[in-house]
Amino acid sequence: MNVLVLNAGSSSLRFQIIQTDADLMQRDVDRRLAHGLVERIGGHAICTLEAEGQGAITEDAPLRDHRAAIERVLDWVISDESGIEGIRALADIHAVGHRVVHGGQLFQRSARVDDEVIAGIESCIELAPLHNPANLRGIRAVKELLGPDLPQVAVFDTAFHATMPECAYLYALPYHYYRRLQVRRYGFHGTSHRYVAYRYRKLARLPRNEVHLITIHLGNGCSACAIQAGNSFDTSMGFTPLDGLIMGTRCGDLDPSIVEYLVQKDGLTLHEVEGILNKQSGLLGISGLTADMRDLQAEVAENGDRRAKLAIDMFCWRVRKYIGAYAVELDGPIAVVFTGGIGENAPAIREQICRGLGRIGLMIDPERNDAAVNGRSARISTDTSEMTAYVIPTNEELLIARDTVRVLEGVIAPRVEDGSP
Amino acid sequence: MNVLVLNAGSSSLRFQIIQTDADLMQRDVDRRLAHGLVERIGGHAICTLEAEGQGAITEDAPLRDHRAAIERVLDWVISDESGIEGIRALADIHAVGHRVVHGGQLFQRSARVDDEVIAGIESCIELAPLHNPANLRGIRAVKELLGPDLPQVAVFDTAFHATMPECAYLYALPYHYYRRLQVRRYGFHGTSHRYVAYRYRKLARLPRNEVHLITIHLGNGCSACAIQAGNSFDTSMGFTPLDGLIMGTRCGDLDPSIVEYLVQKDGLTLHEVEGILNKQSGLLGISGLTADMRDLQAEVAENGDRRAKLAIDMFCWRVRKYIGAYAVELDGPIAVVFTGGIGENAPAIREQICRGLGRIGLMIDPERNDAAVNGRSARISTDTSEMTAYVIPTNEELLIARDTVRVLEGVIAPRVEDGSP
Repeated sequence: MNVLVLNAGSSSLRFQIIQTDADLMQRDVDRRLAHGLVERIGGHAICTLEAEGQGAITEDAPLRDHRAAIERVLDWVISDESGIEGIRALADIHAVGHRVVHGGQLFQRSARVDDEVIAGIESCIELAPLHNPANLRGIRAVKELLGPDLPQVAVFDTAFHATMPECAYLYALPYHYYRRLQVRRYGFHGTSHRYVAYRYRKLARLPRNEVHLITIHLGNGCSACAIQAGNSFDTSMGFTPLDGLIMGTRCGDLDPSIVEYLVQKDGLTLHEVEGILNKQSGLLGISGLTADMRDLQAEVAENGDRRAKLAIDMFCWRVRKYIGAYAVELDGPIAVVFTGGIGENAPAIREQICRGLGRIGLMIDPERNDAAVNGRSARISTDTSEMTAYVIPTNEELLIARDTVRVLEGVIAPRVEDGSP
Repeated sequence: MNVLVLNAGSSSLRFQIIQTDADLMQRDVDRRLAHGLVERIGGHAICTLEAEGQGAITEDAPLRDHRAAIERVLDWVISDESGIEGIRALADIHAVGHRVVHGGQLFQRSARVDDEVIAGIESCIELAPLHNPANLRGIRAVKELLGPDLPQVAVFDTAFHATMPECAYLYALPYHYYRRLQVRRYGFHGTSHRYVAYRYRKLARLPRNEVHLITIHLGNGCSACAIQAGNSFDTSMGFTPLDGLIMGTRCGDLDPSIVEYLVQKDGLTLHEVEGILNKQSGLLGISGLTADMRDLQAEVAENGDRRAKLAIDMFCWRVRKYIGAYAVELDGPIAVVFTGGIGENAPAIREQICRGLGRIGLMIDPERNDAAVNGRSARISTDTSEMTAYVIPTNEELLIARDTVRVLEGVIAPRVEDGSP
């Protein structure tokens, strides 16, 4: 089965075509056939398109909306030019899987898109005002372009965290804000945390109920997840993806009183302050230079920049605190898993994070850690380390494709609708 | 030396008279001679006054400001009626020590009050708009009532935390908010954390540089402090006392995006939301019943109230996370110290917090823990516990009185003035 995986952002569209089915995923040989990215939708867009085994092509074209972007992608997909293996016509695309950011309390697993599911995603717009509308635009455009009969599946960033206990997902606010306004910790990056937990289970050959993990996704966004018996038990992103770890441009944990102080002192609107916390803070805000970890590391190495070093130090310190906090939440032997762009490719950051984790039994092997940058899963703890640590590359698109198959084949039960308090 | 210790709140005044000097504090036999509380200053005030060894008296009187309240206290202190040992006249009060909430980056230790110090406390008003003005009213009233020559000393809630490293005190915000607006973690309850760390050092007979502690102050306000080599290294309260642990009516850690969401959804002003986070959240908000831990425990025991239990569970969960986080920040063997009204008197809460801390080597002895409610210091960990735990009653007033003596005798150096970045 060829699954088109779509991740529609506010002005961007990422896609992959993945060949998968029950047998292929069982044998772990399902694979990507093509992938690409359309940026600056709404204006003069830039498309990067690549079939596996071919070079990437880049083109620019005026694409006024997501429908136009998807149309352009589909044109390319079925063109002779693309040369994607096994795909000659639109009929060779058998299903579409969408990344949807926010499933609120409504969606606790992936769901086949129908009118009711669309209404559900719409009802979560106020929880994700930028993301869910873009995701819906992708769903509607596919329906128009590929017809209402092509199966579409929604895979939610929040769904994996539906298992969190009340103590983890509630904030210490007046209770009616939870009951009335759904204010709670939702958590995000669920597809990534779930995927690497699955990979770890295969690697360690453990039954699901013995999978106790702290998964650390460090990319543009960063989050940590405590996983107990295969289920999300706590996570650092909260009501929104602003909470928790320090990220490229997001502040993470913050005394909420600072919001009012900045509004008062600088005469900013509340909305402007929220924008600063989301887009001008984190590594960028501390360093004053860049949100990119590689650039910060280069600044330290080449110029000894004090604030670049400070940004890295604070970043690692924050992750370490979460590992300590989650270690005492979880029972049984636990492992730490690093993933995401930084987690997979920055051994020095992993090493710095793990300094001082001897108290909870984690010892990193420097050679293994330095070598774990090749996009494969690897253990980075020493042989005698009581707690193990791994690098496991994430693959959210693959999980979306697999969930699409599983939902269509009935392996994933119809959505549990009532998660409301 | 008889030191009057004053803690002036926005509409209240707490006081103690403590007899102390270098010799008495060395022998640890300095002691309280009298104490009391004036509430509802500005209207029909209620005074509770008690000399040691005598019964408490309660009276009500219209007291229009802090000056009137202090005047009333002083009248009682020197009256025959009070019968305070060794005090017959105002001249028997030799110095006044003030609790001052916010010393900003200016005050890194206690300081003798002069015009410059008053100006410094004034300059911190914007960081503590409710507290510092009340503290200043107390200082000015004493000057008027007892004369400009009576030595006064300011002891700051924030000063102990001046030793935190940059990684701990900075938020991941644009750096200019720190440099320009002094937005950083200050921490509070410093006098309490410092006092119990001192007591622990005496108890464990350790040199200061071997004192590595996690001190947990659980009262109306709650905070945790990581102490490395006797110095504050990290603490849970932040820019304001709202941050960190769940408290009676304060939410502690919160996704800062929730502030904007509540403003938008409920049509509240930013100031109203801040009020809710400070005064209607925490144990009160979750339970919908009370901010008082004893009442919550009674509700659970007598009525099995679900939300009262939830409030307690969340409270303990949050403290446990901080212990885990701080454990991996600190080097060397560490101990956990509980203090404050709840920390000293609620064994069931201590026990619940410490569940699951076996991973960091902490095992509580149930009998010792249950017995540790008599206002004395006690070890509550088992003999074989790798990490030790103690209950140590706090005494901020005693530390304020002692600091007053030390500042006047020059044992504490004149204030370090420039802590600015």
